Amino acid sequence: MRWDNQVKKLPYGGDYNPEQWPEEIWDEDMALFAKAGIDTVTLNVFSWAAIQPSETEYDFSKLDKIVNLVTEHGMQIILATSTGAHPAWMAHRYPDILRVDYAGRKHKFGGRHNSCPNSPTYHKYAPLLAEKLAEHYKDQKNIIAFHISNEYGGDCYCENCEKGFRKWLKEKYGSIEAVNKAWNTTFWGHTFYDFEEIVAPNLLSEEGEWGGRCHTMFQGISLDYRRYMSDAMLDMYKMERDAIRKIVPKAAITTNLMGFYKPLDYRKWAKEMDFVSWDNYPSPTDPVEITAMCHDLMRGIKDGESFALMEQTPSVTNWLPYNALKRPGVLRLWSYQAVAHGADSVLFFQMRRSIGACEKYHGAIIDHCGHGDTRVFREASALGEELKKLGDATMTMETKAKVAVLFDWNNWWATEYSAGPSQDLNYREQVSKYYASLRKKNIDVDIVFPDSDLTGYQVVIAPVLYMVETGLDERIRAFVEKGGIFITGFFSGYVQENDLVVTGGYPGKLRDILGIWVEETDAFPQDACNHFSYHGKVYPAKLLCDLIHLEGAVALDDKGYLEDFYQGMPVVTKNEFGQGKAYYVATDSDEAFRDVFLEDILAEAGIRPLLETSKEIEVTSRENETGILYYVLNHGEKAGNFDLPVEGEELLTGETLTAGKYQIEAKDVKVIRVLK
Amino acid sequence: MRWDNQVKKLPYGGDYNPEQWPEEIWDEDMALFAKAGIDTVTLNVFSWAAIQPSETEYDFSKLDKIVNLVTEHGMQIILATSTGAHPAWMAHRYPDILRVDYAGRKHKFGGRHNSCPNSPTYHKYAPLLAEKLAEHYKDQKNIIAFHISNEYGGDCYCENCEKGFRKWLKEKYGSIEAVNKAWNTTFWGHTFYDFEEIVAPNLLSEEGEWGGRCHTMFQGISLDYRRYMSDAMLDMYKMERDAIRKIVPKAAITTNLMGFYKPLDYRKWAKEMDFVSWDNYPSPTDPVEITAMCHDLMRGIKDGESFALMEQTPSVTNWLPYNALKRPGVLRLWSYQAVAHGADSVLFFQMRRSIGACEKYHGAIIDHCGHGDTRVFREASALGEELKKLGDATMTMETKAKVAVLFDWNNWWATEYSAGPSQDLNYREQVSKYYASLRKKNIDVDIVFPDSDLTGYQVVIAPVLYMVETGLDERIRAFVEKGGIFITGFFSGYVQENDLVVTGGYPGKLRDILGIWVEETDAFPQDACNHFSYHGKVYPAKLLCDLIHLEGAVALDDKGYLEDFYQGMPVVTKNEFGQGKAYYVATDSDEAFRDVFLEDILAEAGIRPLLETSKEIEVTSRENETGILYYVLNHGEKAGNFDLPVEGEELLTGETLTAGKYQIEAKDVKVIRVLK
Amino acid sequence: MRWDNQVKKLPYGGDYNPEQWPEEIWDEDMALFAKAGIDTVTLNVFSWAAIQPSETEYDFSKLDKIVNLVTEHGMQIILATSTGAHPAWMAHRYPDILRVDYAGRKHKFGGRHNSCPNSPTYHKYAPLLAEKLAEHYKDQKNIIAFHISNEYGGDCYCENCEKGFRKWLKEKYGSIEAVNKAWNTTFWGHTFYDFEEIVAPNLLSEEGEWGGRCHTMFQGISLDYRRYMSDAMLDMYKMERDAIRKIVPKAAITTNLMGFYKPLDYRKWAKEMDFVSWDNYPSPTDPVEITAMCHDLMRGIKDGESFALMEQTPSVTNWLPYNALKRPGVLRLWSYQAVAHGADSVLFFQMRRSIGACEKYHGAIIDHCGHGDTRVFREASALGEELKKLGDATMTMETKAKVAVLFDWNNWWATEYSAGPSQDLNYREQVSKYYASLRKKNIDVDIVFPDSDLTGYQVVIAPVLYMVETGLDERIRAFVEKGGIFITGFFSGYVQENDLVVTGGYPGKLRDILGIWVEETDAFPQDACNHFSYHGKVYPAKLLCDLIHLEGAVALDDKGYLEDFYQGMPVVTKNEFGQGKAYYVATDSDEAFRDVFLEDILAEAGIRPLLETSKEIEVTSRENETGILYYVLNHGEKAGNFDLPVEGEELLTGETLTAGKYQIEAKDVKVIRVLK
Repeated sequence: MRWDNQVKKLPYGGDYNPEQWPEEIWDEDMALFAKAGIDTVTLNVFSWAAIQPSETEYDFSKLDKIVNLVTEHGMQIILATSTGAHPAWMAHRYPDILRVDYAGRKHKFGGRHNSCPNSPTYHKYAPLLAEKLAEHYKDQKNIIAFHISNEYGGDCYCENCEKGFRKWLKEKYGSIEAVNKAWNTTFWGHTFYDFEEIVAPNLLSEEGEWGGRCHTMFQGISLDYRRYMSDAMLDMYKMERDAIRKIVPKAAITTNLMGFYKPLDYRKWAKEMDFVSWDNYPSPTDPVEITAMCHDLMRGIKDGESFALMEQTPSVTNWLPYNALKRPGVLRLWSYQAVAHGADSVLFFQMRRSIGACEKYHGAIIDHCGHGDTRVFREASALGEELKKLGDATMTMETKAKVAVLFDWNNWWATEYSAGPSQDLNYREQVSKYYASLRKKNIDVDIVFPDSDLTGYQVVIAPVLYMVETGLDERIRAFVEKGGIFITGFFSGYVQENDLVVTGGYPGKLRDILGIWVEETDAFPQDACNHFSYHGKVYPAKLLCDLIHLEGAVALDDKGYLEDFYQGMPVVTKNEFGQGKAYYVATDSDEAFRDVFLEDILAEAGIRPLLETSKEIEVTSRENETGILYYVLNHGEKAGNFDLPVEGEELLTGETLTAGKYQIEAKDVKVIRVLK
Repeated sequence: MRWDNQVKKLPYGGDYNPEQWPEEIWDEDMALFAKAGIDTVTLNVFSWAAIQPSETEYDFSKLDKIVNLVTEHGMQIILATSTGAHPAWMAHRYPDILRVDYAGRKHKFGGRHNSCPNSPTYHKYAPLLAEKLAEHYKDQKNIIAFHISNEYGGDCYCENCEKGFRKWLKEKYGSIEAVNKAWNTTFWGHTFYDFEEIVAPNLLSEEGEWGGRCHTMFQGISLDYRRYMSDAMLDMYKMERDAIRKIVPKAAITTNLMGFYKPLDYRKWAKEMDFVSWDNYPSPTDPVEITAMCHDLMRGIKDGESFALMEQTPSVTNWLPYNALKRPGVLRLWSYQAVAHGADSVLFFQMRRSIGACEKYHGAIIDHCGHGDTRVFREASALGEELKKLGDATMTMETKAKVAVLFDWNNWWATEYSAGPSQDLNYREQVSKYYASLRKKNIDVDIVFPDSDLTGYQVVIAPVLYMVETGLDERIRAFVEKGGIFITGFFSGYVQENDLVVTGGYPGKLRDILGIWVEETDAFPQDACNHFSYHGKVYPAKLLCDLIHLEGAVALDDKGYLEDFYQGMPVVTKNEFGQGKAYYVATDSDEAFRDVFLEDILAEAGIRPLLETSKEIEVTSRENETGILYYVLNHGEKAGNFDLPVEGEELLTGETLTAGKYQIEAKDVKVIRVLK
Repeated sequence: MRWDNQVKKLPYGGDYNPEQWPEEIWDEDMALFAKAGIDTVTLNVFSWAAIQPSETEYDFSKLDKIVNLVTEHGMQIILATSTGAHPAWMAHRYPDILRVDYAGRKHKFGGRHNSCPNSPTYHKYAPLLAEKLAEHYKDQKNIIAFHISNEYGGDCYCENCEKGFRKWLKEKYGSIEAVNKAWNTTFWGHTFYDFEEIVAPNLLSEEGEWGGRCHTMFQGISLDYRRYMSDAMLDMYKMERDAIRKIVPKAAITTNLMGFYKPLDYRKWAKEMDFVSWDNYPSPTDPVEITAMCHDLMRGIKDGESFALMEQTPSVTNWLPYNALKRPGVLRLWSYQAVAHGADSVLFFQMRRSIGACEKYHGAIIDHCGHGDTRVFREASALGEELKKLGDATMTMETKAKVAVLFDWNNWWATEYSAGPSQDLNYREQVSKYYASLRKKNIDVDIVFPDSDLTGYQVVIAPVLYMVETGLDERIRAFVEKGGIFITGFFSGYVQENDLVVTGGYPGKLRDILGIWVEETDAFPQDACNHFSYHGKVYPAKLLCDLIHLEGAVALDDKGYLEDFYQGMPVVTKNEFGQGKAYYVATDSDEAFRDVFLEDILAEAGIRPLLETSKEIEVTSRENETGILYYVLNHGEKAGNFDLPVEGEELLTGETLTAGKYQIEAKDVKVIRVLK
């Protein structure tokens, strides 16, 4: 990734908001930062109202003070543009900056994520502020990155957004006839004669909410609005980025993403960012594999480049239903988990716990008590020390995975907008299930996308590949023909990119690769299922059961479905295609099945775990031309062990480890360098 | 019923939307229709936007092509007017056509059921389109019916609807004083001095939503709005009907209803329709008795006339949470179930599965694969063959039931608007419970209404007859006096038609007929109940328990309630009244009780099952002057049997069946004609 | 309390709405009232529309008739001003009187609680009506109180309310800088430069709804809006009160409150009311201790003065999900429970059951049957007789409690607006738990408030004292220093009155009194917990677990938390402070723990139950200089007993009871006078 090149070790620190405090506190902060080994602060995230009191005034005096303070204390700065929340005066004087929500309600000033992405006012003042900031701080040497806005998100349905939507459609489709075709508007007599007739799809037009999700009557319209809204917010980012770039051509510019955030197609965003950064807030009940997948997603959207961990909480979050404490050791463990998956920083939200408003019970390095004699501060300081020792040892290393799991925002949107066959179909969960099974086997996994280069992978898994965008089937076909192993399953290959069904038989453009035809699909409520047998063991067939006909593929399961009128029809199939193989799993089974099935696949591909370990030990690798780093993380509550097949150096202790079996304490971390 | 008289057999086919497809597909369709025995198509359901591109243009060229195509292939046409969804251009230029929803939000273009019933624009263009269509196709000989709009439904709360409501009230009540009295507006100081002060009851005025249902603060206002909205939509239908009638005086005109659809009082609608048609979409978890009751309702609203089954799915629906496949044989079985209850057609939605928008995963005769080599197509073809053989044998036959169950939209609305005594009181469910018990005994049942002629029935059951409209008690009184058996129970007789309590003691105007006084009513949550004993067996007393005093009636249960302070008060009573009997069941008990109780009633009336069968076999009858048809339907998963007491002819096989016991396979159907 | 001094016995009767009935019914009413011993009626609650047909007309003729009728029959009148629901014509002509709801929707006419508190129209006509009524009836000698409006409640977010909010803020804070500071607006860049930029906090600005409660992004703004809205409604009350006072200086003026009603800070309201009155509608599933606490709250808000029970149902309510009948004897039992806790009246809603609209199934003394031969009427008549005998024996007596439980509307609002640590934290429930444990031990309890005088109490319990308003810590400190016992626990002492955290370590200003420091707090979902042991028995530690350090206090539990990384840290602590003790309970445990813990506390304070009883017997006391009354209420389903330690007179029977053990039947009541 691209921090400014002066960065010599993993930046350690995070969001710092001294403007919320009297200046006498600032010196206390500096002393505590030094004690904790904090060397990097993110400044100015929410200061728009303070910096710009009116249309024409800009006042950087307080920010100057803060910048000077942290500079004098030797710290690096990530400078935010503070456009994540517009000033109250601006909302009052220019209401076009306020959003209209999904229910069609014009909002007033309040909250965050509150600016309309098509507001002329925002378009005028946000890039201008970014430019002024860049101009003012262009010679500030310790700025290691610019941080635009904050956690872009939400959506808007105002008239400006509708106008923007029509423009976006005109550019995409050229003519209203092409729009009608793409959306299949002859259905329900929706034919448009003029772009002006098109309105935003929300609760007042094409959409509805029930069963815990949004439903649409025209998938094509709703999908295009998702794409458009993601693009419109990306445009907000680009305006500011370009404004900074103009002044500071070499600036490293980012914005902080949020992992699996459905509204924004981060794959598209990453292309516009100098480096990816993200905020990691797992729920205490999330399995560690989910966090791992989020990191790998963030690495994947920029094709494997390392990324910044921009935010995490040192102790508690405050917005969950139940905000449990991070257990001792977890602050360190999860920080290293990020690094293990490609992070080149360890940053927190936030340095000092605020006293008012809705995040005052969110954890911080410095608590309300105001001193460093707390469990959390001690843990943070110990980590700070350790990272100093580690230096830049883990930076510029990359993960080289042989297995890829395909994820796609368009498929996420499309599958969950689908009317039928089952409301329980959760795209992200389906992808996670395969990912988690691989992760538990300590296999490095890359998350890839429909436009990714699949060359070099041995196995590509694309669960629920419902929508096959133009060209994707060609890439998969080529991948398999050249010897790759491809896996997909139920509800795949149905539609092209406008959610129009590919006629001729499911799974559409994947049919030849897979050598099957899916005639029908049965759906089950949560308390019912069919069954099938694989290697002599019976597994459940849940959620959806495809009724498939073999067209070249062979059945791998023992005797097909075990029940109901489609008893005997195959469940797991394999098709030899070119020099490779294409597998299809016709139903949603359980973890035990996926474990066995993927073991077979990995054996076929000759892929082995990075290291052999006891349970609950996660191992990842990052490497460069000279060596490979193994990150060994014990997420369990008890000590575990791992086998090191060759000699290496444990970087946190400096110890040399000869080949052999080692113990690792609960919540402990090892970073072992093995030379190539 | 009244198809155009050229119809010689049960029309077979359904909704056909070739305008969604390129013309090269049309020939494939024709070939497949021929193969499947399809002879009838419903055209033009959603083509308003296509036919009328602007205020002044009408373009029937594509429809002409389609009409010619199907005509050349010998098919019959049901011609829809396509006013079920207005054009986008119309919504854009004339927003009065858009609705204001229950929450007071003005909608934009989108979805279906989307035209305001009081829109001047709609009132202008919808009947005009119907007229143009009638004019254009008045000489098209193979049109067997006109199908107006599509599944009328929903509601509107816009200013035009409010104006219409005031007009409707003026016509109904004459003066504001009469309105005040009808609505009891002295309560909470709601007195109106002018019609202009009256607003539509919704979330912004008299109503609220909680506990999964709508609540109102003024039942009188809300009830009248329900009636008014049903009438306003019926007016939409009548405008188009009249426009067609003017041009084609002998046209058979209908619109497709939806069974137990709460917003529209279909009893009132049926009077305006040449024949009833409806769309049958049971959930896979609905007991078959519920579907049976829907059919009987549709037959009942037009006093026993047969009806058209206008839509059903050949395989799956797509809008349910879990869209399971229709099991093999069920397409045929449920088609005959419709016929068994009075349908004179077997029609599907739809002929070819669309490729885009929200119904693309709804089943069709021709699937996305595009050919006929599918399970569903084979089943449909087999049925098509069979129906050809059956010819018109079942048409013009009527069901002659001796038992009637009373259902009433006004009672449906009123009981569920009631504030107290229990939120769990579900009117339709209460009626269904009695119906299902009779249906399982293979007794033909007519659904009747407050204005129905009760003459000729031996038993009339009116569960939860909360509202007794003017004259109804007189009709019941006369019915019982002349020897009829009348059954009702808890929460009956409380109010007159404006939901004003009939003072003097419950059950109000039914008190003399029943010979009881209900002093109080206790309510139970779902996990609690009282008990009572009948013929020595103990049954639960759930939901509501009336505390009744005998005033001439006798108690039939063994010793009254078994618990609580009203222990010993009677639960089941019988009153000799004139030459008949009136029964009262003071609580909601279980299926076992209803079965025993109704056995006693049927024995008393001398009514026997149509045929004796094993379990899960449904038997209905339709007859005419020369003979009677028994429909025997095995809904079970296993073979069953039935006794035929006299010789008959099985029409599907042509076999002669002598009196005796016969086996019937799982999902199989027998249609047996016995001559009179 | 202050009824007009002519009142000689507990007023008995309630809401009477003869205007809903034809006049011929009125005589029946009079006869039935006489039979039932009814001597007091509340008139004119909802007659605004009837009395004032237009801007300039007032018509008291019908009310005059009614007033004369009840006066001739010797009854006392509570005269309502009928401003609880504005006329439809007023809403139609002056829409400013209508509210804008939490979702920003302008309402239309309908319902109740429907007037905007800042409506100029309401401000003009409501006090004018009160004045006209006072003027018209100022010489009516049998008016014992004026009853303003009815059950004030709800909220409004219209522009007039926003303007009012800005004015209220200006008055409270003086400058926009002070507002910014109070709300900590540097967070999320919310700095305001002008009062005009401030908008009402609702779904369109700072708030959101999920997880069953309202969330806010700025606690300071939302809290101030709660306070402002409560004040704005209180202003409505004061306008009318002052209008009446001007004409009838000695009038006893009240409005009917609703117990624990969250939106209105009744502690503040009580100061403006001549006496407190309230409407008691417990759910059938509420434990009797909850009703007891409501009564004590209503007594507490006016510092122990007795109050009027203004409404209760004689039999059923109608708005609950399941409206069970009040069991025999409960009408009497709950009436006396009110008196036992300080009520000086027994009044019902309502005298005659209405026939239309949403309360027609709410119970009444005279049922729809129209006569007195009902269970409910008989029970009411018996009670009427009894109360005549009782006379004024229980009036002017006060409860003298040694234990106080602190309750505070500001804490209610603030804890439940808090983002973190747990969504399950329910302030009222936490307070109830301590109250109920004391009540079950038959200890009289006063509910006190942050501004209450704590002198005279031996024990003060303040559960979840999250917000410590200015001065409160001083009052607690003084109370403990002088020998009092103070108890609080988790989530206490965090913030000052603007919800800004008191830095330096939790529990903030209470830290020295309690002798502890709370470093962190762990949160549990409902199915998980830690444990601790007290007197050798293990109890659960649920919801929240504080991690505390002793700073002078000692641990009372056996060995701290029994599990997790904070195992061993103390759970229950005691600090000697001055001459008193301060206890802290660091977690939410179960009833068994609270019972044992409070027994220890009461033993330490030397406080004994009023009387020793068997289970489910409630005992309270009221006293004056000459004697003490013991109310003994058997809430159980079986007979129980109690010990009378000294001789007394049972007032309902006139019997003299010598010291000894007595039986009391299920649902029975004893009122025993013991002379001092």
